[in-house]
Amino acid sequence: MALIVQKYGGTSVANTDRIQNVAARVKALWQRGNKLVVVVSARSGVTNELISRAKALHATPDDREMDMLLAVGEQETIALLSIALHAIGVPACSRTGAQAGILTDTLHTRARIARVTGGDIPARLDEGKVVIVAGFQGLSTGNEITTLGRGGSDLTAIAIAAAIKADLCQIYTDVDGVYTADPRVVLNARKLPEIAYEEMLELASSGSKVMQSRSVEFAQKYNVPFEVRSSFNDKPGTLVKANAKTMEDAVVSGVALDRSQTRVTVSDIPDTATAVAGIFDALGDAGLNVDMIIKNLGTNGRANLTFSVNTDQFARTEKVVGEALKSLGSGSVRATGEVAKVSIVGVGMTSHPGVAATLFKALADAGVNSDLITTSEIKIAVAVDPAKADATVRAVHEAFRLHEVVPVG
Amino acid sequence: MALIVQKYGGTSVANTDRIQNVAARVKALWQRGNKLVVVVSARSGVTNELISRAKALHATPDDREMDMLLAVGEQETIALLSIALHAIGVPACSRTGAQAGILTDTLHTRARIARVTGGDIPARLDEGKVVIVAGFQGLSTGNEITTLGRGGSDLTAIAIAAAIKADLCQIYTDVDGVYTADPRVVLNARKLPEIAYEEMLELASSGSKVMQSRSVEFAQKYNVPFEVRSSFNDKPGTLVKANAKTMEDAVVSGVALDRSQTRVTVSDIPDTATAVAGIFDALGDAGLNVDMIIKNLGTNGRANLTFSVNTDQFARTEKVVGEALKSLGSGSVRATGEVAKVSIVGVGMTSHPGVAATLFKALADAGVNSDLITTSEIKIAVAVDPAKADATVRAVHEAFRLHEVVPVG
Repeated sequence: MALIVQKYGGTSVANTDRIQNVAARVKALWQRGNKLVVVVSARSGVTNELISRAKALHATPDDREMDMLLAVGEQETIALLSIALHAIGVPACSRTGAQAGILTDTLHTRARIARVTGGDIPARLDEGKVVIVAGFQGLSTGNEITTLGRGGSDLTAIAIAAAIKADLCQIYTDVDGVYTADPRVVLNARKLPEIAYEEMLELASSGSKVMQSRSVEFAQKYNVPFEVRSSFNDKPGTLVKANAKTMEDAVVSGVALDRSQTRVTVSDIPDTATAVAGIFDALGDAGLNVDMIIKNLGTNGRANLTFSVNTDQFARTEKVVGEALKSLGSGSVRATGEVAKVSIVGVGMTSHPGVAATLFKALADAGVNSDLITTSEIKIAVAVDPAKADATVRAVHEAFRLHEVVPVG
Repeated sequence: MALIVQKYGGTSVANTDRIQNVAARVKALWQRGNKLVVVVSARSGVTNELISRAKALHATPDDREMDMLLAVGEQETIALLSIALHAIGVPACSRTGAQAGILTDTLHTRARIARVTGGDIPARLDEGKVVIVAGFQGLSTGNEITTLGRGGSDLTAIAIAAAIKADLCQIYTDVDGVYTADPRVVLNARKLPEIAYEEMLELASSGSKVMQSRSVEFAQKYNVPFEVRSSFNDKPGTLVKANAKTMEDAVVSGVALDRSQTRVTVSDIPDTATAVAGIFDALGDAGLNVDMIIKNLGTNGRANLTFSVNTDQFARTEKVVGEALKSLGSGSVRATGEVAKVSIVGVGMTSHPGVAATLFKALADAGVNSDLITTSEIKIAVAVDPAKADATVRAVHEAFRLHEVVPVG
C-alpha cells in the first residue's frame, strides 16, 4: 500500500478505448489498496485544434485568453476519466489545477509554479477516492487560469507528488523508459532501470524527448523520485532519483542525439568581454539557449563567435543578435549550416578520466569530424554533420559498450 | 451610452465566421460608447459531442463530473470571442461563471442561482473593456463547477444584468422576436414589439420555444427588461418587461402551440379529495407538470381523471401514478392518445369578457372539438387533435385578428 501519483499524457487518453485502458490500470492499483492521484493531459489533438481555432481569429492571440482556452483540454479529460472509473466501480473525483491548489505566477502560457497546496486531495484520498487532476494548468496570484507551458502535465504530477509526499510518481508516456540511446537508431540500445536526476537533465537538454528539464529540476529540488514508463505495456520503466545505482556501475549512461541544431556565426565584433557578454546577455534575456560556443580571433582586435541553437529558434536568435550588434556598431550574424549534436552523459564521468579519449577515438574511427565541442561535469557534446549523426551515435554507443551492463574504465 | 448585457446562443457562435460576426456587432455598440457584457453559450454541437463522449463511457454519468465536462464548452467560446475582439481592436477579457460570481446551490446539472456578485465585471467595464462571460455555469457553495441546466445561458445574462443594474439585456437567438404565432404555421403572424413578463411566461409554458420559463421568472422577480432578437439580422426584436404596451392595446397577445402532449387517463380511483390529491402530490414531487385536468364521476363512488403531460414525460408519469395507485389499492393508468395544446395568451384577457366565446366560436367554425380545457388569468388552452393543430392555430389567430395592430373587445 502506497501513495502514488500517476501521470498519463495525451496519447494515453486520446479516445474512449484508451481512457478505458487507463481506468483499468488505475483500478488494478487501487484494488491493491494504494492511494492514487492521477494527473492527465488533454486528449492528443485537442490542444492543437484549440490553437488553430484561436489562430483563425488572431495571428498572435492574447496569452491570458490562450490559457483560458487551452485549460479546457485537460478539464475535459479529468471528467471523462472519472466517469470511466465510475463505470468500473472505482470511486473517483476530478479536480482542476485551481482546485488542486497549483498556484502559479502570472506569466500566462508559461507560468511557473509558486506553491502547491494539494487542495482537498488528501481528504478525498482518505475517503477512498481516486483523485483525477488536470495537468498543465494552475491558478495565478491574480485569480486567473494559467498554463504551465511545455511539459506542464509532468510538472503538475511531480509538484503534487511533492506536496502530498507521495511514495512514487509514475510518468506514463509513449516510450517505455530512458534508453542508453534512441532504440530507433541503435538497435541494441538498453533501457536503464535507474538514472540520476543530473543525467536525466543532461539527456533532456541534449535532445532526448522523454521529458522537459523543468520537471526533472523540480523533482530534483524536492527530491521526488519518479518512474518513466509506457501506458501501452506493463514493463517496468526507468526510475529517476537522487542516488541511482548506475552511478556506481557505469561511466556513461547514455548517448543523446539532437538533430535540429543550427550553427550560427557572428562575425567581426570587438574582441572585448563587454561585446561578447552583450550578445549572450541579449540571448539570455530573450530566453534563447545557445550551446557549444567557440570564439575565433580575427585581425585588428576583432573576433568571430560560433555557436549552435535549436533550429526552430534561429529566426529569433538572428533578430536578437542583430539588435545587439546595432548597439555595438559593427558585426554581422548568419547561419553557417545545420549540425546534429551527439552527447554522452554520465554521472560517473567526473571520477573517470579517459572518457573524452574514448569518445574522440570512436569519432576518428567512424571518420567523423567535429569542431564544436562542449563539456559539463557529466556530459560531453560534439556537433557533427547531420548526415553522419546516426552512424556517430552507433559508434559511440558501441565504444562505451552501453548495450552491456558492465562498468567501464 | 448605456450598460448593456448581451447573450449569444450556440448557433450564433458556431464557427469562426459567426464568432467574427458577433465580434463585429459588439464592436459597433462598444464604439458608440456603451459598456458591454457579453454572455455566450458553447458552440452548437459541442455540448452534444461532450455528452456522447461521456455516454460512451457510462450510461448514466455522474452529475458532478458532467458539470466539470460541459462547463468546458462555454469556456472555449469566451476565450475565442475575446480573441476575435482583440483582432478588431476591442479590449476584451473573458470570465468563467465562477469568476463572474455566479454562485449556485449544489444541484449539479440543474443548479439554481443563489447569488450573483458580478465579480470584477464593473471594474473591468470602467477600464473600457468588454467583458465576455461564460453562460450556463456557476460555482457552488461547495466550490465546485455547476451548470444551470436548460436555458442556463439566458439565465446567466439576466442574472448578471440584475447584478450590475444593466439598462438592457439583449437575448440573441435564432428567432428574431416573439410572434403572435409560429410564423411557420401562420404566415401573417406579427412580431410583437413588446410583451409582458406574465405573457412571456404563459407562452413559454405553452409550447413557445423562445425561452425557458425560469429565465423569464428571474427577470420578472428582479425587474430586468430584456429584448429577444436575432443575431443574424439587425431588426429590432421583442422587448419583455413589466408594463408592456400591448397590455393596453390587445386582449390576446399570441397563440401558442405545443404538439407533443399525451392524454393520460387514470381510471377507477376513489372519488375522494385524498385520493386525487395523492396522485397529484406524487406527480408534483417527481417534478412532473400536468395540465388540463378533468375529473369524471364513475359508478359506486369511483372516479376517472384525465390530464395531459409532455409526451417525453409520459413514461415517468405512468410509473409515478402507478406507484401512487398501488398505495390506493385500486385504479389503473394509461395513455389515451396524443393531443396538441393550443393556447391564447394575453394580459388584457382579465378585463375583457367574451374572449372564451370568441375562442370557442373560432373552434366551432373550424370544426375542431376539445374536451380538455384549462384557463389561467391570462391564458385559455384547449387540447385538440394533432392533425388539426395547425388549422386551429390559424383559425384562432384570424378570429382575434392578431395580424393587425388593433384593440379587440
